[in-house]
Amino acid sequence: MRQDEAQGVSTTLADFVAGIAWTDVAAQSHEAKRSILNFFATALGSANDPAVTGALRTLLPFSGAATSTVIGRAERLDAMGAAFVNAISANLLDFDDTHLDTIIHPAAPVAAPVLALAQARGFSGQAVLNAFILGVEVECRVGNAVSPGHYSRGWHITSTCGVFGAAAACGWLLGLSSGQIAHAIGIAASQSAGIVENLPTAAKNVSVGNAARNGLFAALLAAEGYSASPRAIEGPLGWARAMGDEPDVGRLTGGLGKTWEIAKNTYKPYPAGIVFHAVIDACFKLRTKLNRRVDDIAFITVQGSALLLARGDRPVRNERDARVSIHHCAACALLLGTAGVAEFSDAVVFRSDIVALRQKVAAVLDASLPDGAARVTVQLTSGETFSEVVMAAKGSLAQPLSDGDIEAKLHDCARLGGSDWDIDRIIDDVWRLDTLADVSSLMRAHA
Amino acid sequence: MRQDEAQGVSTTLADFVAGIAWTDVAAQSHEAKRSILNFFATALGSANDPAVTGALRTLLPFSGAATSTVIGRAERLDAMGAAFVNAISANLLDFDDTHLDTIIHPAAPVAAPVLALAQARGFSGQAVLNAFILGVEVECRVGNAVSPGHYSRGWHITSTCGVFGAAAACGWLLGLSSGQIAHAIGIAASQSAGIVENLPTAAKNVSVGNAARNGLFAALLAAEGYSASPRAIEGPLGWARAMGDEPDVGRLTGGLGKTWEIAKNTYKPYPAGIVFHAVIDACFKLRTKLNRRVDDIAFITVQGSALLLARGDRPVRNERDARVSIHHCAACALLLGTAGVAEFSDAVVFRSDIVALRQKVAAVLDASLPDGAARVTVQLTSGETFSEVVMAAKGSLAQPLSDGDIEAKLHDCARLGGSDWDIDRIIDDVWRLDTLADVSSLMRAHA
Repeated sequence: MRQDEAQGVSTTLADFVAGIAWTDVAAQSHEAKRSILNFFATALGSANDPAVTGALRTLLPFSGAATSTVIGRAERLDAMGAAFVNAISANLLDFDDTHLDTIIHPAAPVAAPVLALAQARGFSGQAVLNAFILGVEVECRVGNAVSPGHYSRGWHITSTCGVFGAAAACGWLLGLSSGQIAHAIGIAASQSAGIVENLPTAAKNVSVGNAARNGLFAALLAAEGYSASPRAIEGPLGWARAMGDEPDVGRLTGGLGKTWEIAKNTYKPYPAGIVFHAVIDACFKLRTKLNRRVDDIAFITVQGSALLLARGDRPVRNERDARVSIHHCAACALLLGTAGVAEFSDAVVFRSDIVALRQKVAAVLDASLPDGAARVTVQLTSGETFSEVVMAAKGSLAQPLSDGDIEAKLHDCARLGGSDWDIDRIIDDVWRLDTLADVSSLMRAHA
Repeated sequence: MRQDEAQGVSTTLADFVAGIAWTDVAAQSHEAKRSILNFFATALGSANDPAVTGALRTLLPFSGAATSTVIGRAERLDAMGAAFVNAISANLLDFDDTHLDTIIHPAAPVAAPVLALAQARGFSGQAVLNAFILGVEVECRVGNAVSPGHYSRGWHITSTCGVFGAAAACGWLLGLSSGQIAHAIGIAASQSAGIVENLPTAAKNVSVGNAARNGLFAALLAAEGYSASPRAIEGPLGWARAMGDEPDVGRLTGGLGKTWEIAKNTYKPYPAGIVFHAVIDACFKLRTKLNRRVDDIAFITVQGSALLLARGDRPVRNERDARVSIHHCAACALLLGTAGVAEFSDAVVFRSDIVALRQKVAAVLDASLPDGAARVTVQLTSGETFSEVVMAAKGSLAQPLSDGDIEAKLHDCARLGGSDWDIDRIIDDVWRLDTLADVSSLMRAHA
């Protein structure tokens, strides 16, 4: 530890990254494949969203040789452009993976540049998995070192920390030396950006896309000899302190190679904020109990922690609001018995029966419930009441999605995103990614 | 003012920018031309620096149609790539213009994207001047609102605020609506990055280049329908507060169109930190007094404010150190009688007579001297002492460079940068920029 402090965080991380071989990470590869499947699910689900189309139209005249796939579409871009657009589509619906300690969505900023670069340069599937695991490790450790103050101060942590993971992953993939990877990580510190104030707008997508694109850019610049301060992250005028935090360097570099952050990755079954998942699960149970007598509901009470209420007790004016609304999540789960991408689209958000049911929901604090739990109580017009409490929602670390759940989510997202890609082939390619000589078939998966 | 607060800073700035016509800014055009001449001087001075070559080599495979000149070189890139590289070369030597209230170097992040975009799209010279004046206005006002805390906390203010100026300037140049310009400014907030810890390294160049490139990108995205929060700058989870400041919204939006920040722009005669200029001028005066008896110097005392000592009392290991060294500035000015680009190159930094003279310099606090002033006292081996104090250095607002000085600086920089460009033609084109139908001759100024 004293040595780590003497040599700087970037160097400690880079020595770790540069020294990793497949045997060190092979045990993490199954979780990495689950993350990448979930990445394709969310990217395909948004592939034709206007935000993706707008980014693509903007970048097409500024693309070099179009080596890399825009996931779910016919167009290609150079690797930096594809990294930007694919990170946007993977994150757009707030349906991507979540590292619960930091609320980082790890895959979007790391998988996007790794796959785009691998496709451009012909790197193997095993190299992609290896780079991805390392990138997730670096971005989540940087996030650990500044959480929870970083996000609550206004930094969109997936963007601000994602760029470090992208830099480390791409640096490893390019075969950079430890010294060059340290510079890439330091260059990432000068590109880290993205604010919470912009989350309800398309400007959020720009910082997520930049994290992916600029991490790759940092690695390419380091390969050309660009340098950075060895204390870019933790120095007195460095990234963490400028952003407002005393970095916890011990959390950043302690136990490298012994614990793996990707083992803590989670995947949402519902395209809503993670804290709303227990509300949805409780409502599914109630729906069964009620035997679909939803028309008879007089009143719905949702109880949860202060975090649940702070995030989700709000008016619903559009799709973005709906994905962070206690009222909408409860209404869809009770009335429709499902909470997929379609249930958070305008078509459902403004359905008169959904609007009417939302108006029957009241959110009430129960400080005895932990974050992530919820109790839902339904009172019928007859006076009967039914109640369900969920402590660990589906998709949490305690109740993870099965491999089959993730495959089903990929099919569901692809259908709703209007994709003509061959989903079975994506699933097959990702499960055997460590044996693929290159990723060209995976990235060329339309029929 | 109440209306400004109700509608958000981005909208107030955008309404101002979108409503500006040439007659509103024509009175500022002479200072804009001086800024642009100085921009060409510093860009040409670094055109063949390894940092510029490295950035160019990195971006060449990622460039769309090569519409825009890399200043001082034969290569071209697309407008975003050229904006990135030209901002780097213009800022690389710390020899660019300075807005003293914020220590922003205004031209690099604004002129680079404006010229690259104008060349790509065939915009007129008058439009370039108009956009440049507006971009400088926006970046410096954003900087005013968060100074001096912003820089001292670790933010490289030219990078972090430059992106706002680039977005506003490019938005105006593209003819965006006020609403679109407001979104471009808000998108810039999600791309603002760059830390002081990285200033001694090439990672600094990345944040300066990104400010230019990403400001243009923000405008292009806004043109494609991308949106941002109307409170991206001043909101509770917005840019200013995330970065650590309570923004002074009054300084940001008060008196728009009545005062102009470009009128406060200054240009350095010496490629050293601005606070060292008084040291150099005092040493020039002493050299004349000493009648070149420099070999007889026993001891040199440089007195100045705490700022001067904090910035400049350091060991000199390389060119970057030399440009922020009290000792090196004093040694060059006394021994060589000049302090141009050549005097801060390795060839001079490691000259044995310069090293020996640097060792005779001591920096001493004189809290009675204001920032920007210096007193230098030389004691000869004979015991004789000579002293000079300079309160307003050459290049300050009180002692501005003449138009002829700036022309001479352009010639000097171009020669030292090894440029074969036709400097007389650049000078002629910039002085008549408001009459040029397009900037193609200016941007194609090699012989």
